[in-house]
Amino acid sequence: MNLLENLNWRYATKRMNGQRVPSDKVERILEAIRLAPSSMGLQPYTVLLIEDEELKKQIRSVAYNQPQIEEGSHLLVFAAWDDVTPAHIDEFISHTASERSIPVENLQDFKNTLLSTAERNTQEQNFNWTARQAYIAFGVGLVAAAAEKVDATPMEGFDAAALDKLLDLPAKGLRSVTLMPLGYRDADNDWLAKLPKVRRQKEKFVLEA
Amino acid sequence: MNLLENLNWRYATKRMNGQRVPSDKVERILEAIRLAPSSMGLQPYTVLLIEDEELKKQIRSVAYNQPQIEEGSHLLVFAAWDDVTPAHIDEFISHTASERSIPVENLQDFKNTLLSTAERNTQEQNFNWTARQAYIAFGVGLVAAAAEKVDATPMEGFDAAALDKLLDLPAKGLRSVTLMPLGYRDADNDWLAKLPKVRRQKEKFVLEA
Repeated sequence: MNLLENLNWRYATKRMNGQRVPSDKVERILEAIRLAPSSMGLQPYTVLLIEDEELKKQIRSVAYNQPQIEEGSHLLVFAAWDDVTPAHIDEFISHTASERSIPVENLQDFKNTLLSTAERNTQEQNFNWTARQAYIAFGVGLVAAAAEKVDATPMEGFDAAALDKLLDLPAKGLRSVTLMPLGYRDADNDWLAKLPKVRRQKEKFVLEA
Repeated sequence: MNLLENLNWRYATKRMNGQRVPSDKVERILEAIRLAPSSMGLQPYTVLLIEDEELKKQIRSVAYNQPQIEEGSHLLVFAAWDDVTPAHIDEFISHTASERSIPVENLQDFKNTLLSTAERNTQEQNFNWTARQAYIAFGVGLVAAAAEKVDATPMEGFDAAALDKLLDLPAKGLRSVTLMPLGYRDADNDWLAKLPKVRRQKEKFVLEA
Protein backbone atom coordinates (compact mmCIF):
# COMPACT_ATOMS: atom_id res chain seq x y z
CA MET A 1 0.00 0.00 0.00
CA ASN A 2 1.06 3.56 -0.67
CA LEU A 3 0.43 4.36 2.94
CA LEU A 4 3.71 2.73 3.96
CA GLU A 5 5.60 4.70 1.30
CA ASN A 6 3.95 7.89 2.53
CA LEU A 7 4.81 7.13 6.15
CA ASN A 8 8.42 6.50 5.16
CA TRP A 9 8.48 9.71 3.10
CA ARG A 10 7.20 11.95 5.88
CA TYR A 11 9.28 13.15 8.80
CA ALA A 12 9.02 15.79 11.47
CA THR A 13 10.11 18.61 9.18
CA LYS A 14 12.28 21.11 11.03
CA ARG A 15 12.63 23.71 8.29
CA MET A 16 10.15 24.64 5.57
CA ASN A 17 10.71 26.79 2.48
CA GLY A 18 7.73 29.13 2.64
CA GLN A 19 6.02 27.69 -0.45
CA ARG A 20 2.26 27.84 -0.16
CA VAL A 21 0.24 24.63 0.12
CA PRO A 22 -2.62 24.81 -2.42
CA SER A 23 -6.06 25.27 -0.90
CA ASP A 24 -7.45 22.05 -2.33
CA LYS A 25 -4.76 20.06 -0.53
CA VAL A 26 -5.43 21.87 2.74
CA GLU A 27 -9.15 21.18 2.31
CA ARG A 28 -8.57 17.44 1.81
CA ILE A 29 -6.29 17.28 4.84
CA LEU A 30 -8.94 19.02 6.94
CA GLU A 31 -11.63 16.71 5.59
CA ALA A 32 -9.57 13.65 6.57
CA ILE A 33 -9.21 15.09 10.06
CA ARG A 34 -12.95 15.72 10.20
CA LEU A 35 -13.63 12.12 9.17
CA ALA A 36 -11.29 10.68 11.81
CA PRO A 37 -12.90 8.36 14.33
CA SER A 38 -13.36 9.29 17.97
CA SER A 39 -14.90 7.60 20.97
CA MET A 40 -18.70 7.54 20.62
CA GLY A 41 -18.23 9.66 17.50
CA LEU A 42 -18.26 12.72 19.74
CA GLN A 43 -15.30 14.53 18.11
CA PRO A 44 -14.59 16.53 21.27
CA TYR A 45 -12.08 18.84 19.62
CA THR A 46 -11.80 21.60 17.05
CA VAL A 47 -9.15 22.49 14.52
CA LEU A 48 -8.08 26.10 14.12
CA LEU A 49 -6.75 27.00 10.68
CA ILE A 50 -4.28 29.86 10.75
CA GLU A 51 -2.74 31.63 7.77
CA ASP A 52 -2.27 35.11 9.17
CA GLU A 53 1.45 35.93 9.21
CA GLU A 54 1.30 38.16 12.27
CA LEU A 55 -0.59 35.55 14.26
CA LYS A 56 1.82 32.79 13.21
CA LYS A 57 4.68 35.02 14.38
CA GLN A 58 3.04 35.43 17.78
CA ILE A 59 2.43 31.68 18.03
CA ARG A 60 6.06 30.97 17.15
CA SER A 61 7.08 33.16 20.09
CA VAL A 62 5.24 30.87 22.52
CA ALA A 63 6.48 27.70 20.78
CA TYR A 64 10.21 27.73 21.44
CA ASN A 65 10.71 29.82 18.31
CA GLN A 66 10.22 26.84 16.01
CA PRO A 67 10.64 28.25 12.48
CA GLN A 68 8.19 25.90 10.72
CA ILE A 69 5.33 27.79 12.33
CA GLU A 70 6.14 30.75 10.11
CA GLU A 71 7.80 28.85 7.26
CA GLY A 72 4.74 26.68 6.71
CA SER A 73 1.90 28.36 4.82
CA HIS A 74 -0.83 27.02 7.10
CA LEU A 75 -0.86 26.20 10.76
CA LEU A 76 -3.36 23.80 12.30
CA VAL A 77 -4.01 24.02 16.02
CA PHE A 78 -5.73 20.99 17.52
CA ALA A 79 -7.76 22.12 20.51
CA ALA A 80 -9.71 19.73 22.72
CA TRP A 81 -12.83 20.57 24.72
CA ASP A 82 -11.78 21.61 28.22
CA ASP A 83 -14.71 19.61 29.59
CA VAL A 84 -17.61 17.52 28.33
CA THR A 85 -20.77 19.43 29.15
CA PRO A 86 -24.50 18.64 28.83
CA ALA A 87 -24.64 21.33 26.11
CA HIS A 88 -22.01 19.47 24.08
CA ILE A 89 -23.91 16.23 24.47
CA ASP A 90 -27.24 17.82 23.57
CA GLU A 91 -25.82 19.23 20.38
CA PHE A 92 -24.17 15.93 19.47
CA ILE A 93 -27.35 13.94 20.06
CA SER A 94 -29.53 16.41 18.11
CA HIS A 95 -27.09 16.40 15.21
CA THR A 96 -26.90 12.59 15.17
CA ALA A 97 -30.70 12.24 15.21
CA SER A 98 -30.98 14.76 12.40
CA GLU A 99 -28.31 13.13 10.22
CA ARG A 100 -29.85 9.71 10.71
CA SER A 101 -33.46 10.88 10.43
CA ILE A 102 -34.48 9.33 13.71
CA PRO A 103 -36.33 10.85 16.69
CA VAL A 104 -34.07 12.25 19.41
CA GLU A 105 -35.92 10.03 21.90
CA ASN A 106 -34.42 6.94 20.24
CA LEU A 107 -31.01 8.12 21.40
CA GLN A 108 -32.00 8.70 25.03
CA ASP A 109 -30.08 5.70 26.41
CA PHE A 110 -26.98 6.66 24.47
CA LYS A 111 -27.34 10.24 25.70
CA ASN A 112 -27.69 9.10 29.30
CA THR A 113 -24.52 7.02 29.00
CA LEU A 114 -22.61 10.04 27.72
CA LEU A 115 -24.04 12.31 30.40
CA SER A 116 -23.33 9.96 33.27
CA THR A 117 -19.75 9.32 32.12
CA ALA A 118 -19.05 13.04 31.76
CA GLU A 119 -20.56 13.81 35.15
CA ARG A 120 -18.70 11.01 36.92
CA ASN A 121 -15.35 12.38 35.77
CA THR A 122 -13.59 15.51 36.94
CA GLN A 123 -13.08 18.27 34.41
CA GLU A 124 -9.41 17.30 34.13
CA GLN A 125 -10.32 13.66 33.48
CA ASN A 126 -12.75 14.72 30.80
CA PHE A 127 -10.07 16.91 29.23
CA ASN A 128 -7.54 14.08 29.28
CA TRP A 129 -10.07 12.00 27.41
CA THR A 130 -10.98 14.69 24.86
CA ALA A 131 -7.26 15.30 24.29
CA ARG A 132 -6.69 11.63 23.52
CA GLN A 133 -9.46 11.74 20.92
CA ALA A 134 -7.78 14.75 19.34
CA TYR A 135 -4.59 12.72 19.03
CA ILE A 136 -6.38 10.14 16.88
CA ALA A 137 -7.42 12.92 14.51
CA PHE A 138 -3.90 14.33 14.70
CA GLY A 139 -2.51 10.96 13.53
CA VAL A 140 -5.01 10.86 10.67
CA GLY A 141 -4.06 14.43 9.72
CA LEU A 142 -0.38 13.54 9.54
CA VAL A 143 -1.18 10.63 7.23
CA ALA A 144 -3.40 12.88 5.11
CA ALA A 145 -0.65 15.48 4.72
CA ALA A 146 1.80 12.78 3.62
CA ALA A 147 -0.77 11.45 1.13
CA GLU A 148 -0.83 14.94 -0.40
CA LYS A 149 2.99 15.09 -0.34
CA VAL A 150 2.68 18.02 2.00
CA ASP A 151 5.14 18.24 4.85
CA ALA A 152 3.83 18.53 8.37
CA THR A 153 5.46 18.75 11.76
CA PRO A 154 3.78 17.17 14.75
CA MET A 155 4.40 19.58 17.63
CA GLU A 156 3.73 19.37 21.33
CA GLY A 157 6.49 21.83 22.25
CA PHE A 158 4.70 25.06 23.06
CA ASP A 159 3.37 26.95 26.05
CA ALA A 160 -0.22 25.77 25.96
CA ALA A 161 -1.52 28.30 28.47
CA ALA A 162 0.04 31.18 26.53
CA LEU A 163 -1.27 29.86 23.22
CA ASP A 164 -4.75 29.38 24.66
CA LYS A 165 -4.74 32.99 25.82
CA LEU A 166 -3.46 34.23 22.46
CA LEU A 167 -6.22 32.41 20.60
CA ASP A 168 -8.92 33.19 23.19
CA LEU A 169 -9.52 29.45 23.60
CA PRO A 170 -10.82 29.49 27.21
CA ALA A 171 -13.82 31.55 26.04
CA LYS A 172 -14.50 28.81 23.48
CA GLY A 173 -14.19 26.02 26.05
CA LEU A 174 -11.06 24.73 24.34
CA ARG A 175 -7.46 23.93 25.26
CA SER A 176 -4.70 23.56 22.69
CA VAL A 177 -3.06 20.14 22.57
CA THR A 178 -0.95 19.96 19.41
CA LEU A 179 0.22 22.04 16.45
CA MET A 180 0.68 20.99 12.84
CA PRO A 181 2.36 23.41 10.45
CA LEU A 182 1.77 22.50 6.79
CA GLY A 183 4.27 23.38 4.11
CA TYR A 184 7.21 22.05 2.14
CA ARG A 185 10.55 20.90 3.46
CA ASP A 186 13.65 23.01 2.99
CA ALA A 187 15.85 19.96 2.66
CA ASP A 188 19.10 21.91 2.26
CA ASN A 189 18.69 23.64 5.59
CA ASP A 190 16.92 20.93 7.56
CA TRP A 191 19.38 18.85 9.59
CA LEU A 192 16.80 16.09 9.92
CA ALA A 193 15.93 15.81 6.24
CA LYS A 194 18.71 13.40 5.34
CA LEU A 195 18.91 11.33 8.50
CA PRO A 196 17.44 7.84 8.44
CA LYS A 197 14.11 7.39 10.17
CA VAL A 198 14.47 5.59 13.49
CA ARG A 199 11.77 3.27 14.73
CA ARG A 200 11.75 0.60 17.41
CA GLN A 201 12.58 -2.82 16.01
CA LYS A 202 9.52 -4.79 15.01
CA GLU A 203 10.38 -7.67 17.33
CA LYS A 204 10.41 -5.30 20.29
CA PHE A 205 7.47 -3.21 19.17
CA VAL A 206 4.96 -5.96 18.38
CA LEU A 207 4.49 -8.64 21.01
CA GLU A 208 2.64 -11.78 20.06
CA ALA A 209 0.52 -12.68 23.04
CA MET B 1 -7.12 11.04 -2.54
CA ASN B 2 -8.14 7.51 -1.73
CA LEU B 3 -7.69 8.28 1.94
CA LEU B 4 -11.00 10.16 2.03
CA GLU B 5 -12.78 7.25 0.35
CA ASN B 6 -11.21 4.86 2.85
CA LEU B 7 -12.22 7.04 5.78
CA ASN B 8 -15.77 7.15 4.48
CA TRP B 9 -15.77 3.39 3.93
CA ARG B 10 -14.64 2.51 7.43
CA TYR B 11 -16.86 2.60 10.48
CA ALA B 12 -16.72 1.30 14.04
CA THR B 13 -17.74 -2.22 13.08
CA LYS B 14 -20.03 -3.75 15.69
CA ARG B 15 -20.27 -7.27 14.26
CA MET B 16 -17.69 -9.22 12.27
CA ASN B 17 -18.12 -12.44 10.32
CA GLY B 18 -15.17 -14.47 11.55
CA GLN B 19 -13.34 -14.45 8.23
CA ARG B 20 -9.60 -14.41 8.70
CA VAL B 21 -7.56 -11.36 7.71
CA PRO B 22 -4.60 -12.55 5.58
CA SER B 23 -1.23 -12.30 7.32
CA ASP B 24 0.26 -9.94 4.75
CA LYS B 25 -2.49 -7.42 5.45
CA VAL B 26 -1.97 -7.70 9.19
CA GLU B 27 1.77 -7.21 8.68
CA ARG B 28 1.24 -4.04 6.66
CA ILE B 29 -1.16 -2.65 9.25
CA LEU B 30 1.38 -3.35 11.99
CA GLU B 31 4.14 -1.76 9.92
CA ALA B 32 2.06 1.41 9.46
CA ILE B 33 1.56 1.52 13.23
CA ARG B 34 5.28 1.04 13.78
CA LEU B 35 6.05 3.90 11.39
CA ALA B 36 3.59 6.27 13.09
CA PRO B 37 5.12 9.45 14.49
CA SER B 38 5.41 10.11 18.20
CA SER B 39 6.83 12.88 20.30
CA MET B 40 10.65 12.87 20.10
CA GLY B 41 10.29 9.62 18.14
CA LEU B 42 10.22 7.75 21.43
CA GLN B 43 7.31 5.42 20.57
CA PRO B 44 6.46 4.88 24.24
CA TYR B 45 4.00 2.07 23.60
CA THR B 46 3.79 -1.50 22.38
CA VAL B 47 1.24 -3.38 20.33
CA LEU B 48 0.16 -6.84 21.42
CA LEU B 49 -1.03 -9.08 18.60
CA ILE B 50 -3.54 -11.68 19.73
CA GLU B 51 -4.97 -14.53 17.69
CA ASP B 52 -5.52 -17.13 20.37
CA GLU B 53 -9.24 -17.90 20.61
CA GLU B 54 -9.25 -18.66 24.31
CA LEU B 55 -7.41 -15.45 25.13
CA LYS B 56 -9.75 -13.41 22.94
CA LYS B 57 -12.68 -14.97 24.79
CA GLN B 58 -11.19 -13.93 28.13
CA ILE B 59 -10.55 -10.41 26.84
CA ARG B 60 -14.14 -10.16 25.60
CA SER B 61 -15.29 -10.97 29.12
CA VAL B 62 -13.54 -7.85 30.46
CA ALA B 63 -14.67 -5.69 27.53
CA TYR B 64 -18.42 -5.48 27.98
CA ASN B 65 -18.82 -8.68 25.98
CA GLN B 66 -18.21 -6.90 22.67
CA PRO B 67 -18.49 -9.66 20.02
CA GLN B 68 -15.97 -8.20 17.56
CA ILE B 69 -13.19 -9.24 19.91
CA GLU B 70 -13.94 -12.86 19.08
CA GLU B 71 -15.45 -12.33 15.65
CA GLY B 72 -12.36 -10.56 14.36
CA SER B 73 -9.45 -12.82 13.47
CA HIS B 74 -6.80 -10.65 15.10
CA LEU B 75 -6.92 -8.38 18.10
CA LEU B 76 -4.46 -5.54 18.60
CA VAL B 77 -3.96 -4.21 22.12
CA PHE B 78 -2.29 -0.81 22.30
CA ALA B 79 -0.40 -0.60 25.58
CA ALA B 80 1.48 2.52 26.68
CA TRP B 81 4.51 2.62 28.96
CA ASP B 82 3.31 3.10 32.53
CA ASP B 83 6.19 5.51 33.09
CA VAL B 84 9.16 6.92 31.21
CA THR B 85 12.28 5.55 32.88
CA PRO B 86 16.01 6.17 32.41
CA ALA B 87 16.25 2.60 31.05
CA HIS B 88 13.71 3.43 28.32
CA ILE B 89 15.62 6.57 27.43
CA ASP B 90 18.98 4.78 27.40
CA GLU B 91 17.67 2.15 25.01
CA PHE B 92 16.11 4.77 22.75
CA ILE B 93 19.27 6.86 22.60
CA SER B 94 21.50 3.82 21.94
CA HIS B 95 19.19 2.61 19.19
CA THR B 96 19.04 6.06 17.58
CA ALA B 97 22.83 6.41 17.64
CA SER B 98 23.21 2.97 16.13
CA GLU B 99 20.64 3.54 13.37
CA ARG B 100 22.19 6.88 12.47
CA SER B 101 25.81 5.71 12.85
CA ILE B 102 26.72 8.48 15.24
CA PRO B 103 28.41 8.35 18.65
CA VAL B 104 26.03 8.17 21.60
CA GLU B 105 27.79 11.23 23.03
CA ASN B 106 26.39 13.36 20.21
CA LEU B 107 22.94 12.74 21.61
CA GLN B 108 23.76 13.72 25.17
CA ASP B 109 21.80 17.00 25.11
CA PHE B 110 18.77 15.29 23.60
CA LYS B 111 19.06 12.55 26.23
CA ASN B 112 19.27 15.08 29.04
CA THR B 113 16.14 16.81 27.77
CA LEU B 114 14.25 13.53 27.78
CA LEU B 115 15.53 12.58 31.22
CA SER B 116 14.73 15.91 32.83
CA THR B 117 11.22 15.98 31.36
CA ALA B 118 10.49 12.45 32.53
CA GLU B 119 11.86 13.16 36.00
CA ARG B 120 9.95 16.41 36.38
CA ASN B 121 6.63 14.64 35.75
CA THR B 122 4.80 12.27 38.04
CA GLN B 123 4.37 8.70 36.86
CA GLU B 124 0.72 9.44 36.04
CA GLN B 125 1.69 12.50 34.01
CA ASN B 126 4.23 10.45 32.10
CA PHE B 127 1.60 7.77 31.46
CA ASN B 128 -0.92 10.35 30.24
CA TRP B 129 1.71 11.50 27.78
CA THR B 130 2.71 8.01 26.61
CA ALA B 131 -0.98 7.18 26.18
CA ARG B 132 -1.49 10.20 23.94
CA GLN B 133 1.38 9.05 21.75
CA ALA B 134 -0.26 5.64 21.46
CA TYR B 135 -3.43 7.33 20.21
CA ILE B 136 -1.51 8.83 17.27
CA ALA B 137 -0.40 5.31 16.30
CA PHE B 138 -3.93 4.08 16.91
CA GLY B 139 -5.25 6.65 14.41
CA VAL B 140 -2.63 5.59 11.88
CA GLY B 141 -3.57 1.94 12.42
CA LEU B 142 -7.24 2.64 11.73
CA VAL B 143 -6.30 4.35 8.47
CA ALA B 144 -4.02 1.43 7.57
CA ALA B 145 -6.78 -1.12 8.16
CA ALA B 146 -9.15 0.86 5.94
CA ALA B 147 -6.47 1.08 3.24
CA GLU B 148 -6.38 -2.73 3.29
CA LYS B 149 -10.18 -2.89 3.23
CA VAL B 150 -10.01 -4.58 6.59
CA ASP B 151 -12.59 -3.63 9.19
CA ALA B 152 -11.44 -2.42 12.55
CA THR B 153 -13.20 -1.24 15.67
CA PRO B 154 -11.63 1.45 17.82
CA MET B 155 -12.40 0.43 21.40
CA GLU B 156 -11.88 2.14 24.71
CA GLY B 157 -14.70 0.26 26.42
CA PHE B 158 -12.97 -2.32 28.59
CA ASP B 159 -11.77 -2.80 32.14
CA ALA B 160 -8.18 -1.73 31.71
CA ALA B 161 -7.01 -2.98 35.11
CA ALA B 162 -8.51 -6.43 34.46
CA LEU B 163 -7.06 -6.58 30.96
CA ASP B 164 -3.63 -5.52 32.22
CA LYS B 165 -3.73 -8.32 34.75
CA LEU B 166 -4.88 -10.85 32.15
CA LEU B 167 -2.03 -9.94 29.82
CA ASP B 168 0.55 -9.55 32.61
CA LEU B 169 1.19 -5.99 31.49
CA PRO B 170 2.34 -4.53 34.84
CA ALA B 171 5.35 -6.86 34.75
CA LYS B 172 6.16 -5.41 31.32
CA GLY B 173 5.77 -1.80 32.49
CA LEU B 174 2.73 -1.36 30.26
CA ARG B 175 -0.90 -0.28 30.63
CA SER B 176 -3.55 -1.03 28.02
CA VAL B 177 -5.16 2.02 26.44
CA THR B 178 -7.13 0.86 23.40
CA LEU B 179 -8.19 -2.26 21.51
CA MET B 180 -8.49 -2.80 17.77
CA PRO B 181 -10.09 -6.01 16.52
CA LEU B 182 -9.35 -6.67 12.84
CA GLY B 183 -11.75 -8.62 10.67
CA TYR B 184 -14.58 -8.23 8.20
CA ARG B 185 -17.97 -6.66 8.78
CA ASP B 186 -21.05 -8.81 9.13
CA ALA B 187 -23.22 -6.20 7.45
CA ASP B 188 -26.47 -8.17 7.76
CA ASN B 189 -26.21 -8.37 11.52
CA ASP B 190 -24.52 -5.06 12.28
CA TRP B 191 -27.03 -2.36 13.17
CA LEU B 192 -24.45 0.32 12.43
CA ALA B 193 -23.41 -0.95 9.00
CA LYS B 194 -26.11 0.86 7.07
CA LEU B 195 -26.44 4.04 9.09
CA PRO B 196 -24.92 7.21 7.66
CA LYS B 197 -21.66 8.37 9.19
CA VAL B 198 -22.16 11.37 11.44
CA ARG B 199 -19.49 14.03 11.72
CA ARG B 200 -19.56 17.56 13.05
CA GLN B 201 -20.29 20.08 10.33
CA LYS B 202 -17.17 21.50 8.75
CA GLU B 203 -18.11 25.09 9.63
CA LYS B 204 -18.29 24.14 13.29
CA PHE B 205 -15.32 21.81 13.27
CA VAL B 206 -12.76 24.01 11.52
CA LEU B 207 -12.38 27.54 12.83
CA GLU B 208 -10.45 30.03 10.73
CA ALA B 209 -8.46 32.09 13.18
